[in-house]
Amino acid sequence: MSNTWGELFRVSTWGESHGPAVGALLDGVPSKLPLTEADIQADLDRRRSCGAYATPRREDDRVEILSGVYQGLTLGTPIMLLIPNKQARSQDYKGWEELYRPSHADYTWQAKYGIRDPRGGGRASARETVARVAAGAVARKLLRQRAGVEIVGWVEQIGRVKADVVSTEVAPDMVERSPWRCPDASVAEAMELELAEAAAGGDSLGGVVGLSLRHVPVGWGEPVFDRLNALLAKAMLSIPAVKGVEFGEGFAAALRRGSEHNDAFAMREGRVRTLTNRSGGIQGGISNGEEIYLRVAFKPTPTIALPQHTVSASGDDIEYAFKGRHDVCFVPRAVPVAEAMAALALADCCLMAMSNRA
Amino acid sequence: MSNTWGELFRVSTWGESHGPAVGALLDGVPSKLPLTEADIQADLDRRRSCGAYATPRREDDRVEILSGVYQGLTLGTPIMLLIPNKQARSQDYKGWEELYRPSHADYTWQAKYGIRDPRGGGRASARETVARVAAGAVARKLLRQRAGVEIVGWVEQIGRVKADVVSTEVAPDMVERSPWRCPDASVAEAMELELAEAAAGGDSLGGVVGLSLRHVPVGWGEPVFDRLNALLAKAMLSIPAVKGVEFGEGFAAALRRGSEHNDAFAMREGRVRTLTNRSGGIQGGISNGEEIYLRVAFKPTPTIALPQHTVSASGDDIEYAFKGRHDVCFVPRAVPVAEAMAALALADCCLMAMSNRA
Amino acid sequence: MSNTWGELFRVSTWGESHGPAVGALLDGVPSKLPLTEADIQADLDRRRSCGAYATPRREDDRVEILSGVYQGLTLGTPIMLLIPNKQARSQDYKGWEELYRPSHADYTWQAKYGIRDPRGGGRASARETVARVAAGAVARKLLRQRAGVEIVGWVEQIGRVKADVVSTEVAPDMVERSPWRCPDASVAEAMELELAEAAAGGDSLGGVVGLSLRHVPVGWGEPVFDRLNALLAKAMLSIPAVKGVEFGEGFAAALRRGSEHNDAFAMREGRVRTLTNRSGGIQGGISNGEEIYLRVAFKPTPTIALPQHTVSASGDDIEYAFKGRHDVCFVPRAVPVAEAMAALALADCCLMAMSNRA
Amino acid sequence: MSNTWGELFRVSTWGESHGPAVGALLDGVPSKLPLTEADIQADLDRRRSCGAYATPRREDDRVEILSGVYQGLTLGTPIMLLIPNKQARSQDYKGWEELYRPSHADYTWQAKYGIRDPRGGGRASARETVARVAAGAVARKLLRQRAGVEIVGWVEQIGRVKADVVSTEVAPDMVERSPWRCPDASVAEAMELELAEAAAGGDSLGGVVGLSLRHVPVGWGEPVFDRLNALLAKAMLSIPAVKGVEFGEGFAAALRRGSEHNDAFAMREGRVRTLTNRSGGIQGGISNGEEIYLRVAFKPTPTIALPQHTVSASGDDIEYAFKGRHDVCFVPRAVPVAEAMAALALADCCLMAMSNRA
Repeated sequence: MSNTWGELFRVSTWGESHGPAVGALLDGVPSKLPLTEADIQADLDRRRSCGAYATPRREDDRVEILSGVYQGLTLGTPIMLLIPNKQARSQDYKGWEELYRPSHADYTWQAKYGIRDPRGGGRASARETVARVAAGAVARKLLRQRAGVEIVGWVEQIGRVKADVVSTEVAPDMVERSPWRCPDASVAEAMELELAEAAAGGDSLGGVVGLSLRHVPVGWGEPVFDRLNALLAKAMLSIPAVKGVEFGEGFAAALRRGSEHNDAFAMREGRVRTLTNRSGGIQGGISNGEEIYLRVAFKPTPTIALPQHTVSASGDDIEYAFKGRHDVCFVPRAVPVAEAMAALALADCCLMAMSNRA
Repeated sequence: MSNTWGELFRVSTWGESHGPAVGALLDGVPSKLPLTEADIQADLDRRRSCGAYATPRREDDRVEILSGVYQGLTLGTPIMLLIPNKQARSQDYKGWEELYRPSHADYTWQAKYGIRDPRGGGRASARETVARVAAGAVARKLLRQRAGVEIVGWVEQIGRVKADVVSTEVAPDMVERSPWRCPDASVAEAMELELAEAAAGGDSLGGVVGLSLRHVPVGWGEPVFDRLNALLAKAMLSIPAVKGVEFGEGFAAALRRGSEHNDAFAMREGRVRTLTNRSGGIQGGISNGEEIYLRVAFKPTPTIALPQHTVSASGDDIEYAFKGRHDVCFVPRAVPVAEAMAALALADCCLMAMSNRA
Repeated sequence: MSNTWGELFRVSTWGESHGPAVGALLDGVPSKLPLTEADIQADLDRRRSCGAYATPRREDDRVEILSGVYQGLTLGTPIMLLIPNKQARSQDYKGWEELYRPSHADYTWQAKYGIRDPRGGGRASARETVARVAAGAVARKLLRQRAGVEIVGWVEQIGRVKADVVSTEVAPDMVERSPWRCPDASVAEAMELELAEAAAGGDSLGGVVGLSLRHVPVGWGEPVFDRLNALLAKAMLSIPAVKGVEFGEGFAAALRRGSEHNDAFAMREGRVRTLTNRSGGIQGGISNGEEIYLRVAFKPTPTIALPQHTVSASGDDIEYAFKGRHDVCFVPRAVPVAEAMAALALADCCLMAMSNRA
Repeated sequence: MSNTWGELFRVSTWGESHGPAVGALLDGVPSKLPLTEADIQADLDRRRSCGAYATPRREDDRVEILSGVYQGLTLGTPIMLLIPNKQARSQDYKGWEELYRPSHADYTWQAKYGIRDPRGGGRASARETVARVAAGAVARKLLRQRAGVEIVGWVEQIGRVKADVVSTEVAPDMVERSPWRCPDASVAEAMELELAEAAAGGDSLGGVVGLSLRHVPVGWGEPVFDRLNALLAKAMLSIPAVKGVEFGEGFAAALRRGSEHNDAFAMREGRVRTLTNRSGGIQGGISNGEEIYLRVAFKPTPTIALPQHTVSASGDDIEYAFKGRHDVCFVPRAVPVAEAMAALALADCCLMAMSNRA
């Protein structure tokens, strides 16, 4: 359903980068969940910026709850979250109607719709993700309250610099104290260098985000097409600039033998547990009660200051170099977005699991 | 919707491994598409088996069209495809009610539903994929007829042996002539050795499947949540044993700088083209007219002959070793399954693109 | 979704009147519900025929459960119900490709799809409703088990003969003991006369079906678009030949003043009750715990023996008179169909109510 | 999907009566449709009030388009329509937390959600329909542009006064020139009297709305569950206070014989037409190219000045009489709401028909 995520916990985002506002409409949120604007603001602030090398557009990103909440509790009715666009400087985008920026969505959107809002990339702008983060904050409250689920994301790699991370041991404050949201302090310097070098060259960097979904109860995910990993994969690939996702051992599992990859079961304190977690917490598309661990690959920011060959909307081959500042690497800012999308996928599973209890 | 794929081209699969039959119900297939059982049988035969080291269960897999087709043409009404289960030997599964096989779905399904059909894994069995392949054959006919789209899949890696493949150059006959569906003849011997070694050790192997989706028109995919890559990622992760997916440069894109990863646009024969295709044919979630290229990681077959620690349904720690033959590596047989899922994802996009034309 | 009903309790019917079989695929049925073919057969037998003046096509209508049930319990996986077509005599329909029967679906289906299966009306035949009744039987089991809900339907009117019925007092055996499924024995003779007269004249009759949905818990129905009455109205109007539906006082409510129509609330045995039930058990789109009462209007069977003016598929004006026997009045046979559709609508609400509990 | 209508042309409404705003989010609107706020305002103004005897709450109902439109054309992205609530005087609703008004939604919503916004009925208020009318205006533009479809509604009955109307001859200006939206001038006086009498007695009236959907192309509607009449019935019953709907001859068809009800086909100017239109323009669930005619029954306004027995939220039996002014009869104001819902149902069919063309 294009701009809507989910079946029972449904989120529809709306808004163009330089329109009056962006927002999210939530339907299916159970009633009597405590919810205030402050609950949402915290995640928005985390998304807003991180470290240097980030875009200078400085939105307040103040969320307004326009419906669905009464006296601090959800009503079971649709929740409208609105975030005004205040800092949009459309004059910066003069001439963009006439330009297909390389590896951006300008050309494909124009080809699909026959029209686009060129100001700041319109709806294809990553600004749309602010609405996802707002909705994700509501999902996280629900998940925490109903099932004790916690979602922690971090930067695992920027460009060629890879962190050494044990997913189960990453705590949110380890992430937030790093300027790049990387919990491995030992690579901080190398990351800084990688970023500075790219910035100096007018270039950009990609990276990898790790996600740990904790305390997910056994039994979430709907086989056969709505497996939990399938939903999470869709959630991640719906984020701009994502090029891949893997669960547990992921692509490395293809190198293993069955005897090396299988997770042995064992009874622990009266519960069925696995002795290892190479599966990443999902078996047969259903959560098995272990940590769900996934990794998400982001391509480098397509906007760079270096000259590139491209094409104009009128079909002329041209040279183009972006003038101005840009996100050298948006991966640290993508962490709360990936967390939010994981929360949306899990929230839907949570309600679904409530509907089909034997 | 759990057992249903798609919004406009909808496929619902049904059936347990050892029930009377498995099948697929298709709704939304446009009328007047030529369709016979032979169209479907070809892909079923490809899935049925491949090379040695494959399961000895030898089903005929003869599909029957029970509705939706009249005098060789689709009616626009639901198409019911039924494939009888003939070779199910349920006596082989005696005792399975009492067993949670490691890295299988036994435990999670039991925990979710409070019941399961243990015979051959029930609905969690990969036998369910026969229904996907049948449905995928219909989707492929539609895609070919409406848009000239072709889908080619192959084995890119088995265990530690990786093929060297240029995706755009792989032809279906190169794939089918290989006993492992690997178009790189130079690694045939190494793959054979890898397989023989694992088999001899009672072990199993995973691998990687590559997919090339060709002639997909510009403009397929629905932002923001139903991006083409998001739908394809969900399609792939819905296949049993898949642990990851990547598009274009995929995880390697995280290592590149923007100037290294971006695809420059250029006019070629009056059309907007990219000079490279590191994006893998999708930009902003929408097809750009170039080849769509993705890679899918499969874990090793969880069934192995080696003894493993596990747990019984009554909560006892036990040792377990599978007696009998199994797929040492199902990756070659997974190729038509991956192709089918790609076809289902594209068919839905195809009809959606028809509905929202300006 | 055209051939699918429901969001959580989902039913997809398939099959043409003269194809090999018709059937229903159910997804979302909770696990561990006791279910056998006998449970379903009872309702199929009720639909199969009723009284004289019904079609002479005598199908066995033996249902087969092909999936989703193991050892007498539902698995939580899709349930495939198949009913073979055995008595289809397609030679009776020779020449129908060339004919648009008045007030049948021949013309509109041909115009929509550019093709149709003319044998017995193809998918537009009321034979499709056998699949609904089969699915409805499963829904009724669920409703009874989960919530004690009972659904009772009856004939309230045939042609010009109207029964005098107090909905809350109609018992299933009162209905089934009547040859026309009319619980008001005082009009039996008049109905017989009305039917005999129409039959003698080669003509047909319509009528009205009443439905009483009992013990529906307070709180079912999802505002604002999936109100319980909206879902039930859609369910009824999806039945072939239905021309109208009304709830509680229905159209007569338009004649009343607020003081005459409003249902006063009062406490009764610690529960909120209404002293009257002019609302028909639904207020603000949500069940209020009282009996849900609705009436469904059916047009007369369009097939009659009298000559009619019509048009051939090649566009010629022609005269046409049906040769052979037909249902003079299908309304008695429509009772189990209407009950089934009510059950499908309620079953979906039942699961939805479980998913969104505060 | 509770607060969302449609599959391809999707409308989600949001907002409580006394919250900051109400609104509608539209997804799936094709790109390049000319659209301004003025297009929407016209219908909002028609809904806002009509004649005397209407509620004194006088909202401006100024719509703001917050997304999805650029330089006067739709972008193919979600369109957010927001209408501020300015005149909400919540002090008038003091004590309502403690009151279940008879035949209102207070009790059922409270029972379902365990919470409600009592101010003005919260989301159960008919104020929600302002969002439907806004969305319907967009649907009407699409229908007009794509298919030349026109939708005309009118009042056919208020209380016991029935108009004599030939549906095909009703022109919008005939409707709008009447203070009660009744095109039959001969009953104007009687209606005035009926209203005055009810008002004087502190009572309220219901009525019937007629709808004529013109120039709907042959072939809209998706059998078997999404028949055009089923979708329209759901659309109408989703409107607050609606108790019944009928198509063509409707309930009267139950009184007719087949020979009296059937519509003979005949060729007229090279097209297949019907010589009568007792079917109301739909056969087999699909439009046949004739006028679609339906009638919608509304119960009387539940709010009256007369004392009524009811129950408090704490479970006490009480007497209650509404103090203040209310809509004696909202039926004239319901006309644009019914038109809007018909437009939403048709717009979805329109896009669906484009997706499944042979």
